[in-house]
Amino acid sequence: MTVPYSKRMQGYGSDFIKEMFAAARNPDLISFAGGAPAPELYPLDAFRAASDKAFEEWGRTVMAYDGAEGIMPLREIIANERMPQMGVNVGPEDIRILSGSQQGIDFAARLFIDEGDTIICEYPTYLGALNSFGAFKPSYVSVPMDNQGMLMEELEKTLIANPQAKLLYTVPEFQNPTGITLAADRRKRMVELAEEHDILIIEDSPYYEIRFEGENIPAIKSFDTTGDRVIYLGSFSKTLCPGIRLGWACANFEILDRYRVMKEASDFQASTVTQYQVATFLRDNPLDELLNESRRVYRGRRDAALAAIEEFFPDNVEYTIPQGGYFIWLTVPGVNATEMFLPAVNDIGVAYVPGESFFAAADQSCNFRLSYSQMTEEKIREGISRLAKLLSSA
Amino acid sequence: MTVPYSKRMQGYGSDFIKEMFAAARNPDLISFAGGAPAPELYPLDAFRAASDKAFEEWGRTVMAYDGAEGIMPLREIIANERMPQMGVNVGPEDIRILSGSQQGIDFAARLFIDEGDTIICEYPTYLGALNSFGAFKPSYVSVPMDNQGMLMEELEKTLIANPQAKLLYTVPEFQNPTGITLAADRRKRMVELAEEHDILIIEDSPYYEIRFEGENIPAIKSFDTTGDRVIYLGSFSKTLCPGIRLGWACANFEILDRYRVMKEASDFQASTVTQYQVATFLRDNPLDELLNESRRVYRGRRDAALAAIEEFFPDNVEYTIPQGGYFIWLTVPGVNATEMFLPAVNDIGVAYVPGESFFAAADQSCNFRLSYSQMTEEKIREGISRLAKLLSSA
Repeated sequence: MTVPYSKRMQGYGSDFIKEMFAAARNPDLISFAGGAPAPELYPLDAFRAASDKAFEEWGRTVMAYDGAEGIMPLREIIANERMPQMGVNVGPEDIRILSGSQQGIDFAARLFIDEGDTIICEYPTYLGALNSFGAFKPSYVSVPMDNQGMLMEELEKTLIANPQAKLLYTVPEFQNPTGITLAADRRKRMVELAEEHDILIIEDSPYYEIRFEGENIPAIKSFDTTGDRVIYLGSFSKTLCPGIRLGWACANFEILDRYRVMKEASDFQASTVTQYQVATFLRDNPLDELLNESRRVYRGRRDAALAAIEEFFPDNVEYTIPQGGYFIWLTVPGVNATEMFLPAVNDIGVAYVPGESFFAAADQSCNFRLSYSQMTEEKIREGISRLAKLLSSA
Repeated sequence: MTVPYSKRMQGYGSDFIKEMFAAARNPDLISFAGGAPAPELYPLDAFRAASDKAFEEWGRTVMAYDGAEGIMPLREIIANERMPQMGVNVGPEDIRILSGSQQGIDFAARLFIDEGDTIICEYPTYLGALNSFGAFKPSYVSVPMDNQGMLMEELEKTLIANPQAKLLYTVPEFQNPTGITLAADRRKRMVELAEEHDILIIEDSPYYEIRFEGENIPAIKSFDTTGDRVIYLGSFSKTLCPGIRLGWACANFEILDRYRVMKEASDFQASTVTQYQVATFLRDNPLDELLNESRRVYRGRRDAALAAIEEFFPDNVEYTIPQGGYFIWLTVPGVNATEMFLPAVNDIGVAYVPGESFFAAADQSCNFRLSYSQMTEEKIREGISRLAKLLSSA
């Protein structure tokens, strides 16, 4: 039979995420591909204890429907303990629980994007966002970055040239894929420009609390004095573990109410069980202690990666120096990172993500996203050494 | 600011689900509104034990990403133990885990529906499906039912009159909202007609295993000999508990692969934690024992509801007699169930869902969906007696 897909779906969908998941499951591979936390950092015993306690304390409530907004105890913890870390002072009524922050991107696409609508994003930008947006057939306009993030003069030009643009999508901290962080003055300016040009900002901020160097920079949302301009998306995938699939949106009430409607239409609500487990864990355990340990480990891994790049790669190679998160963005002039992917995986047992995946309009190929989050310092050194050898022989 | 919603979203979204959730939380209300299982039937202790065991046995795996397909142990249990109950013999490769079967409806809408595309459904049909489909602006064509479900002669006429129709959406067992079950010969005929007229069937089957009277009727999917025609959607929300948000799709590989792409774009995957908890629970506990207890309880409640309707309502009232599931469909000539909703909740403390919510094209108002699943037999009798009094005074 001919499957009658919607126009929206024709030619849509990359297999790359599937391949990355598959590669990540091969235990012998040195994988710089996945953007996930190190499993050895999951607080297994404490989360197991909290999970059990959730059943003891809340009983059948944890197994029932609760509602699309998310359970109140978890929204309270996010409003009272997590958002102030980002410089954002809100109440639980300003928070909606999502099945990961990815769902917040997907809902933004569903809520705001008609075919052909313009989305402004960084250049390069997050693959998963392109994946969510792509289903709704937008056009993209990319804004270049330097090592302080998106260039505000370029953003202003872009807004003037694209007065009908609807959304500005940004990953302001330790950006996926580049590791770059948007400077504080640019955040303020970004909100001003969004006000002037009447555009919504999607602030996708899953790595915010994985800063291992430098001072916290307030969220873009903290500069949103009207409260109407920024949809902030947070996540527990990096701070606690990704298998729980819990994130949140913080925005104005009207938009959050539309998020609720979307949540009801798409899956009713996030797992009540998992929400109570996480709320109990966060109440009984100081997340900051866990985060400090994570930061120590990731800093060590970043340092190992940077040292190995310095040692094994030639001088014409460029790379970013992230102050947090998981990603280094490597630029190797004259090399095609996409063509090199299969030889790297099959011949030298090293995986990464080719830069091409992150471009809203693909036109560059000499970039590698290297994630240091899941490999030991020894494996990082070994993997980068192998990669350098493969590149020099290419 | 003017929020720049997509055209898709304008005028979209009913607050009714939110209101029902809110009404369901009032413990004094006699609620026939919610379509959820009785909390006292949740296997709290066994599920708590299985949850803990999942951490013990699988360790950090339960907290990690696994992949959009769903964890293999759960897909195996569904393929080997649940689907054969429905007369469907498949392997785990034919199953994809979803965040509830609602997500399976939503993905079907996303995958197949362009604005204006025709969806064929029962008359009346499930509110939540209308909610998912609605975002993609289809047109609906409804097919009337008798007490054996959708009329196949009417379906054939409808298919001939609407050659461009893309999807046929049906809830074949103990339908939400009517409680009606589609007869076996009509299931076979429905697949034949779908083949002849080249249309996909979405078989939404969350109540299948809540049959408390009569013999199981094989799923529509069991008549789908090519395997290409039917997307079967199953759920653990009614058999185990709804707060886990786990369901599944069973379809041909090409469609399942698109479901995977949708899953990655919308929320990556269902909670790994919950999937392992449920897989461990289902391995260690005979679901059929739990189901037998549920069936006993729901049969008692249905009987109480039918007896009370007979006792308190006048003779001109019509009602369905479900052989399973949660719903009785009450027709009270001359009464407007929508207008009566607020007086019923506020003045007599009784909630139901007005029939209007379930019509793809709203034009009837004298129907009440009464769910007997969550009230004791005493409360059912009391609630129906109050409702009859209110109606007679109206």
